[in-house]
Amino acid sequence: MRRILIIGAGRSASSLIAYLLSKSESENLHLVVADLSLALAEKKIKNHPNASAIVLDIFNVENRKAAIKDASIVISMLPAHLHIEIAKDCLQFRKHLVTASYISDAMQALNEEAKENNLIFMNEIGLDPGIDHMSAMKVIDEIRAKGGNMLLFESFCGGLVAPESDTNLWNYKFTWAPRNVVLAGQGGAAKFIQEGTYKYIPYGALFRRTEFLEVEGYGKFEAYSNRDSLKYRSIYGLDDILTLYRGTIRRVGFSKAWNMFVQLGMTDDSYIMEGSENMSYRQFINSFLPYHPTDSAEIKTRLLLKIDQDDIMWDKLLELDLFNPDKKVNLPNATPAQILEKILSDSWTLQPDDKDMIVMYHKFGYELNGEKLQIDSKMVCIGDDQTYTAMAKTVGLPVAMATLLILNKKITTPGVQLPINKEVYLPILKELEEYGVVFNEQKMPYFGYNPDLF
Amino acid sequence: MRRILIIGAGRSASSLIAYLLSKSESENLHLVVADLSLALAEKKIKNHPNASAIVLDIFNVENRKAAIKDASIVISMLPAHLHIEIAKDCLQFRKHLVTASYISDAMQALNEEAKENNLIFMNEIGLDPGIDHMSAMKVIDEIRAKGGNMLLFESFCGGLVAPESDTNLWNYKFTWAPRNVVLAGQGGAAKFIQEGTYKYIPYGALFRRTEFLEVEGYGKFEAYSNRDSLKYRSIYGLDDILTLYRGTIRRVGFSKAWNMFVQLGMTDDSYIMEGSENMSYRQFINSFLPYHPTDSAEIKTRLLLKIDQDDIMWDKLLELDLFNPDKKVNLPNATPAQILEKILSDSWTLQPDDKDMIVMYHKFGYELNGEKLQIDSKMVCIGDDQTYTAMAKTVGLPVAMATLLILNKKITTPGVQLPINKEVYLPILKELEEYGVVFNEQKMPYFGYNPDLF
Repeated sequence: MRRILIIGAGRSASSLIAYLLSKSESENLHLVVADLSLALAEKKIKNHPNASAIVLDIFNVENRKAAIKDASIVISMLPAHLHIEIAKDCLQFRKHLVTASYISDAMQALNEEAKENNLIFMNEIGLDPGIDHMSAMKVIDEIRAKGGNMLLFESFCGGLVAPESDTNLWNYKFTWAPRNVVLAGQGGAAKFIQEGTYKYIPYGALFRRTEFLEVEGYGKFEAYSNRDSLKYRSIYGLDDILTLYRGTIRRVGFSKAWNMFVQLGMTDDSYIMEGSENMSYRQFINSFLPYHPTDSAEIKTRLLLKIDQDDIMWDKLLELDLFNPDKKVNLPNATPAQILEKILSDSWTLQPDDKDMIVMYHKFGYELNGEKLQIDSKMVCIGDDQTYTAMAKTVGLPVAMATLLILNKKITTPGVQLPINKEVYLPILKELEEYGVVFNEQKMPYFGYNPDLF
Repeated sequence: MRRILIIGAGRSASSLIAYLLSKSESENLHLVVADLSLALAEKKIKNHPNASAIVLDIFNVENRKAAIKDASIVISMLPAHLHIEIAKDCLQFRKHLVTASYISDAMQALNEEAKENNLIFMNEIGLDPGIDHMSAMKVIDEIRAKGGNMLLFESFCGGLVAPESDTNLWNYKFTWAPRNVVLAGQGGAAKFIQEGTYKYIPYGALFRRTEFLEVEGYGKFEAYSNRDSLKYRSIYGLDDILTLYRGTIRRVGFSKAWNMFVQLGMTDDSYIMEGSENMSYRQFINSFLPYHPTDSAEIKTRLLLKIDQDDIMWDKLLELDLFNPDKKVNLPNATPAQILEKILSDSWTLQPDDKDMIVMYHKFGYELNGEKLQIDSKMVCIGDDQTYTAMAKTVGLPVAMATLLILNKKITTPGVQLPINKEVYLPILKELEEYGVVFNEQKMPYFGYNPDLF
């Protein structure tokens, strides 16, 4: 039996564990699911004969090392900053490691040592990062193989609510960490390249400079720019590309409405509001409005944000119950962002029967034999339910598949890796299709940013 | 002879040194002006018989201690973070110390030791902080002495260009550190209280939420909120006050125009722009605009900022030559804020005959014998020339006067101090009037924020 140690049994581990259990007979696997909560670990393995659940506090060094020493390969589904001690143990006991997280500097620093020990530390192999790398590199490598020259790469991804569960005016519910949604775009200007020119968008303008995207069968979407679109420029081998842009997908109209919160200052996470615990929702919004002895919070909001009475923006605010004087925040020492997250959670929490949806969209512009061409590659994945969500599937399945490929020596390149090589992306993208993660690639003429050509 | 050691002979030391030299005969003073640049120190003392210039590198511990040991009292006009080693030497050699800087935590920590040694470490005794404390506490103490109860305190200050030198559309020139002007308001939301309600303004809205102020003979001004209006709430004894607001004064229209830079992202100091050295002014603004193959930077700016062709905002941008494709930034590895400062300096640098102007405006609302009353206290100071600027006078003269009052044992309270006590503010405010720094106090009914009462 080959022992797979899975550390962390949270939401994103559901599909991962289910996949590996389904392969456990044919692949001769035993899963050890380790979590701080034994109940959570047990719930995920459902008394499967080829799995065991254990309690593991990774800060207990002895227990951690014992569990890792015992395994054939280790999967860490913990938050990114907790991987590093596990990675060091993997070096000590010569175990491969798989994570869905961005490669930290500390992780990268283990590259040489991992190589020397012929170990594979595969990271960024979830959804985003993960499936984005794989589906992009597949097309880029194909274009290059034909002798094409990349002109443009734009890549968009979003975690949304499925159309059948899309029941509010924002066309949005929290399908992943709400805090990250509230803080999205903060911490520095967005940076990208368009037609050879570096472009920067400050946070205050980020949600007003969106691009539109059309996905057949699912309608129109929009995307706002990610903070650093240039992060993978060299890794993808696109140092000379003219246009490089990465963005986050939302339904059309979300960003314009979200910008109201940004303009009011409600997404700020840098200071604690006075009296947050006993503050009403109405007092919360009023904190960001000028004082007036008689004008209502409503009219002040409308004036400040220039909202006509028949503007859908207004209905979006009302839907959140933002002006309710009786609903209390009930959070002591909270920042505006924390309070906003609480208010949004009232309206944007998935209901038991709701399903989520992942949308990914790449545009590849290139020149081949003097002709300018474009490939659009699109993927939509809908969750099965609230356990096997689209997010859990798209994050967890590539991790599980990579783990098996490493065990079976189909992935062999050692070192600190991310999934940009054929030996990784070809088998995984192919197998993902069986699970409904299918990229639809369309070839068309390349117009770039020149609307006169349309 | 009493030896006054003045460390730092920069711009803000001119009026300070001139004042003390003028008193040197009658008060039996010898000034030692110490600077890294001997030439600068010599220039300031103009061969006066009661003064000497010395070279001093304060990081040379031996020289620093020798100079301080020799003095009767020490004035530090260095940047705030450099005071602390001087203060420790002053403790060692039992010397009084005077600075115009905010009290740092490190300085505050010396309070007990200073008291035990009966030493006065007087800080925040320039303009802002300084004259603002003194002129405010004078009125607040008078109101309290009559049995009044403070309802409102608003305090505004600005360094501007004098009306006779006001020659550009922005009605503004740099009269002090330009970098601080470009970065003003960044680093967190503005916080204040209006009629008992805490209010917060995010950076993106700061320059659109201004108050208007009228100063007889000088016309209308506006003010945007300072970051933390509540800093002196307890120090002034205003813990229960309903309205507390501090702001920065500009000419009307400045803030709305400045907000264009904020919205574009040009005031960001957190990242380095690609290719800044060879960038033209036009490329700089274009970096913040969407790409388009044919639309000009001008039309894109107008669309993004919603500027009509006959809007004065547009002329303000043109006046700065922002769209010039030939003018180069010439700054390697520069942030947007550094580049903007450079561009503004082309237009906003004081010319040799230009004069500066300081405007200060306090509003005091209070209740006395059941009646609501208000006192407005206003001060305008115009510079003599580019050496004895309004800024140099208002920063340097209170420092000089406090130094003499300490030497003459008129100021006697030991410890780490700021000028909120009568023994400090009464003689200094009185003497400042001889130098043209005059507060005009007007009594009127108090309207608060209720426009129906007007």
